[in-house]
Amino acid sequence: MAQRLCIIGVGLIGGSLARALKVAGAVGEVIGYGRDAAQLQLAVELGVIDRAETDLAAALKGADVVVLATPVGAMEGMLCAMAPHIDSDTIVTDVGSTKGSVVAAAARAFGSVPVRFVPGHPIAGTERSGVAASFAELYHKRRVILTPLAHTDPAAVAVVRSLWQAAGAEVVEMEVQHHDEVLAATSHLPHVLAYTLVDTLARMDEHTEIFRFAAGGFRDFTRIASSDPRMWHDICLANREAILKVLDRYAADLAAVRGAIERGDGAALLHTFGRAKKARDEFKQ
Amino acid sequence: MAQRLCIIGVGLIGGSLARALKVAGAVGEVIGYGRDAAQLQLAVELGVIDRAETDLAAALKGADVVVLATPVGAMEGMLCAMAPHIDSDTIVTDVGSTKGSVVAAAARAFGSVPVRFVPGHPIAGTERSGVAASFAELYHKRRVILTPLAHTDPAAVAVVRSLWQAAGAEVVEMEVQHHDEVLAATSHLPHVLAYTLVDTLARMDEHTEIFRFAAGGFRDFTRIASSDPRMWHDICLANREAILKVLDRYAADLAAVRGAIERGDGAALLHTFGRAKKARDEFKQ
Repeated sequence: MAQRLCIIGVGLIGGSLARALKVAGAVGEVIGYGRDAAQLQLAVELGVIDRAETDLAAALKGADVVVLATPVGAMEGMLCAMAPHIDSDTIVTDVGSTKGSVVAAAARAFGSVPVRFVPGHPIAGTERSGVAASFAELYHKRRVILTPLAHTDPAAVAVVRSLWQAAGAEVVEMEVQHHDEVLAATSHLPHVLAYTLVDTLARMDEHTEIFRFAAGGFRDFTRIASSDPRMWHDICLANREAILKVLDRYAADLAAVRGAIERGDGAALLHTFGRAKKARDEFKQ
Repeated sequence: MAQRLCIIGVGLIGGSLARALKVAGAVGEVIGYGRDAAQLQLAVELGVIDRAETDLAAALKGADVVVLATPVGAMEGMLCAMAPHIDSDTIVTDVGSTKGSVVAAAARAFGSVPVRFVPGHPIAGTERSGVAASFAELYHKRRVILTPLAHTDPAAVAVVRSLWQAAGAEVVEMEVQHHDEVLAATSHLPHVLAYTLVDTLARMDEHTEIFRFAAGGFRDFTRIASSDPRMWHDICLANREAILKVLDRYAADLAAVRGAIERGDGAALLHTFGRAKKARDEFKQ
């Protein structure tokens, strides 16, 4: 339960959390801060937030919990701007898709990572963005990863945990670096691959025809290439090392599959495809 | 309209066509041929075919249209077995995902490609297979590509076209090689990429955890890795050249994106991701 919750960046992620907490009765007042006055006004009109603030100090004043929900690339600047206005009692958490970069940014902004700063990442979202796309059920049965540091106040972690649980999520804890490696594999790399494929095809001479004859499988495969380019640009820069590591592993495996196709090695293809199908079918359950 | 239609291989694709033609009243009798007697019997019980034959000569006898709907890898053997029993009036068409390989197989099986052989490919399917997965609506508003040769009898093409149209599909014609290039780009390559990604992740130490934290985007991206491995093994071998060509293009583009991530070149990433999003959003409409 938060008496006064301040959401910094009221888009799909922050807006959906605010909506969910209101539905659950787990929040008193919700203050929204953002740079885009029109989006903030829309958030008020939609009932997502109770009050809009375009002045940061005013937005943070009296908040017991602050949720930083800007794009990853904007977080360091925002943490620096917030630092003078955050007192030692205030719990700050974020929703960034990368955690190492956010923890490093918090350390720079505050001198050291505050004990009541709880790094977090809800594994939820759609390819849409903006407050108009937010909905209260976004986090139902989705996982939220918290990556507290050794010195993080357990009471602050418990508060953040309870808020996400009130929003319907299952909360798990993980080490920062481990989070970044797992997400590089399951989320960041697939986005890089999908963007690259669509761009490769779009630059081919026959691109109109190519897309015309694409079927449902292609549609599913490339859906994530409709995601916000700036957000994914931020993530690629923020989680560079982990992404490169899994990308190199993937590129080596792809080269091996290429070799099997070139030399007509059906057994190797069947082995790889069969193992992948088995893993994917297990994941479905 | 076909008086007596013979389906060779009554699975998802052949079974769905039979169902659709029956619903549309565009077929007299449907004979099903296959090697798996239990699947054939199931096809009879489901009302997909009128009569099951496990003797090929008996299945083909008196058929005015024969639809070859086996996996691509089995087509050459089947065409060779069919050749002695196909008279010059019989129209033969296929549903293979690759067309160059099927045309070459027909040339070898018959001495030269028969004038009433109409190579075809319905751009439809699901990741499931087997006659139990077939349904009459599979081809509704989906595209079917026919790739007749210069000497193909236009009357035979017209019959095959009318059958697919009766099944609800939009029929287009294309040259064999062009078909194989377009499908390599939109279908074959995405399957190779998805299989490879799932296999890369499945072989990582933390694979259980990796899949546990995968979200909806990953689910969509990797859905096609649940497709039948043998079918895609066949396709990779049958359309090797076109797949390698677009795969190499993709690998080069991926290496460029990797370079941009490594050197922190945000402008390059934003450019590529933005161009991809634009192309993908246009494709949606």
